[in-house]
Amino acid sequence: MAPETLPTYADVEDAAGRLHGRAHHTPVVTSSTVDRMTGAEVFFKCENFQRAGAFKFRGAYNALSRLSPEARKRGVLTFSSGNHAQAIALAGQLLGIPTTIVMPRDAPAVKLEATRGYGGEVVLYDRATSHREELGQRLAAERGLTLIPPYDHPHIVAGQGTAARELFEEVGALDCLLVPCGGGGLLSGSALAASALAPSCKVVGVEPAAGDDGTRSFRTRTLQQVQNPDTIADGARTQSLGRITFALVLRLVHDMVTVTDDQLIRGMFLLWERLKIVVEPTGALGATALLERIVDLRGKRVGVIVSGGNVDLGQVGDWVKRREATPRAIPS
Amino acid sequence: MAPETLPTYADVEDAAGRLHGRAHHTPVVTSSTVDRMTGAEVFFKCENFQRAGAFKFRGAYNALSRLSPEARKRGVLTFSSGNHAQAIALAGQLLGIPTTIVMPRDAPAVKLEATRGYGGEVVLYDRATSHREELGQRLAAERGLTLIPPYDHPHIVAGQGTAARELFEEVGALDCLLVPCGGGGLLSGSALAASALAPSCKVVGVEPAAGDDGTRSFRTRTLQQVQNPDTIADGARTQSLGRITFALVLRLVHDMVTVTDDQLIRGMFLLWERLKIVVEPTGALGATALLERIVDLRGKRVGVIVSGGNVDLGQVGDWVKRREATPRAIPS
Repeated sequence: MAPETLPTYADVEDAAGRLHGRAHHTPVVTSSTVDRMTGAEVFFKCENFQRAGAFKFRGAYNALSRLSPEARKRGVLTFSSGNHAQAIALAGQLLGIPTTIVMPRDAPAVKLEATRGYGGEVVLYDRATSHREELGQRLAAERGLTLIPPYDHPHIVAGQGTAARELFEEVGALDCLLVPCGGGGLLSGSALAASALAPSCKVVGVEPAAGDDGTRSFRTRTLQQVQNPDTIADGARTQSLGRITFALVLRLVHDMVTVTDDQLIRGMFLLWERLKIVVEPTGALGATALLERIVDLRGKRVGVIVSGGNVDLGQVGDWVKRREATPRAIPS
Repeated sequence: MAPETLPTYADVEDAAGRLHGRAHHTPVVTSSTVDRMTGAEVFFKCENFQRAGAFKFRGAYNALSRLSPEARKRGVLTFSSGNHAQAIALAGQLLGIPTTIVMPRDAPAVKLEATRGYGGEVVLYDRATSHREELGQRLAAERGLTLIPPYDHPHIVAGQGTAARELFEEVGALDCLLVPCGGGGLLSGSALAASALAPSCKVVGVEPAAGDDGTRSFRTRTLQQVQNPDTIADGARTQSLGRITFALVLRLVHDMVTVTDDQLIRGMFLLWERLKIVVEPTGALGATALLERIVDLRGKRVGVIVSGGNVDLGQVGDWVKRREATPRAIPS
């Protein structure tokens, strides 16, 4: 993709206007306990309180709101079993745009229900016999639907950047911003916002150790992949960064780090226990890099994007046992 | 106790002044999902975000701040294994008042640590061989400490009433206010606030079905007791209302209802899953009465006090299994 087609901060501004009154202006939460534990002044931007439970609504609504009247009438399609699916379905419902979501037949019932609850038409496929991108592209072509990918799209990136924009506008300049990274939409959008609103702020992407393709891509400056990484951070199991997001990460992101799943469980549950907020594993990646001192931020003003809160509570019992089996006090 | 010694709304106002800048002004959360499910307009007052994780800090700080300089110097004592213990320890730390907390030897380690972390001196006793009230009173007498009970105290009641006061000041008049009830401190304080700020608002106390002493006391107008009720709502396992709280409940509360533990688990987890907030079982009593339609509030403006968020995550796995074993869709 040619550099001139990359989104800019002006696109983030434009997205903020479109999202005004439609997306939640999510709260920024502070904790004297966390500040004491980390030695930093920490601001958590809580996208777990966003509509449909994650930042994904921002990009989805922005992308759909920019479609032509004809494209809106025909409708949109996406393939996702995660937060992007529900975000597209809800954005479509609000904008009166028909949505088709391609999801695996074995997706959790609660996710199928939620997506249908927002009015999305769910098309199921069999993981063993079908390839979701091919199925999605064929369906889109047959039905004249516009395909809205989960991250590698300028309007998606611009929409995701509005969360960090709100954070900087509320708390002012920061020394560092920690951002979960899967396909890089939230990370590159956040970096766009930081580059305009807090140029001296270091933007750091955080991945699960098993899905460290973005970190390797950042270090080698060559796009790296990972196949079905074994991590509880299901929102960061993406195969690789996208063309757009990788280009922006290389230009605007200052560092990439990883956290293990054991660290992630400790970090996530600390947010549950101390901040009393429900955060999903992927949503706790940034906070964990801080709490486990993967990045040493003592004495700094730090922003942390808490990206989502859609958790299957059926897994909590196992995660708690895993935490008990790997005890380590959070450094203090 | 003579009626003239009961706290009044003026005491709640006084407490609000003392708590200003020391207690958190907790957020009021709304949810379009909950509004759609219940047909009501619902405002959740989130005391799970209060300091030390529960409304208890309000009463504790108010009571300690009213002590004479001499009493402050000698210190205070309380007996509690729950949120009141941590609240007293934290309030003492902030006010420079030594605190002694009598706790059972088998209390969860995390609660002992938290209480000690706030600077409280923990005195352990053996449930099998000691009686905590006797031990507490003996210690208080020996050391000249002021005993601060968990609910049956005018300054405690007045402090707890400041949460509902903030709610009414933020959202205006309500048709109904749902309040968790253990010993009745939060309930009677809330009723004091309602009586002054929203006289037409019906105040309803909510208890666990196994610990329905308050509901029976309310119906019979005679103080009833319950012994070690089997309920997950550990903050509502109190033996009975107090003299002060019972008198106020009879005068100012409009109804009392109960919810079963199975209902409570569904209600609590709905708050986790939809509102993305961590609420302890006792904290979800009021919300559950609404969500399970124990009280039908369609078309009404409803306030719900979410009283605390201190959960032992080790229990979540069992609660989730229990919910799966008693499936019932929340009425919609």
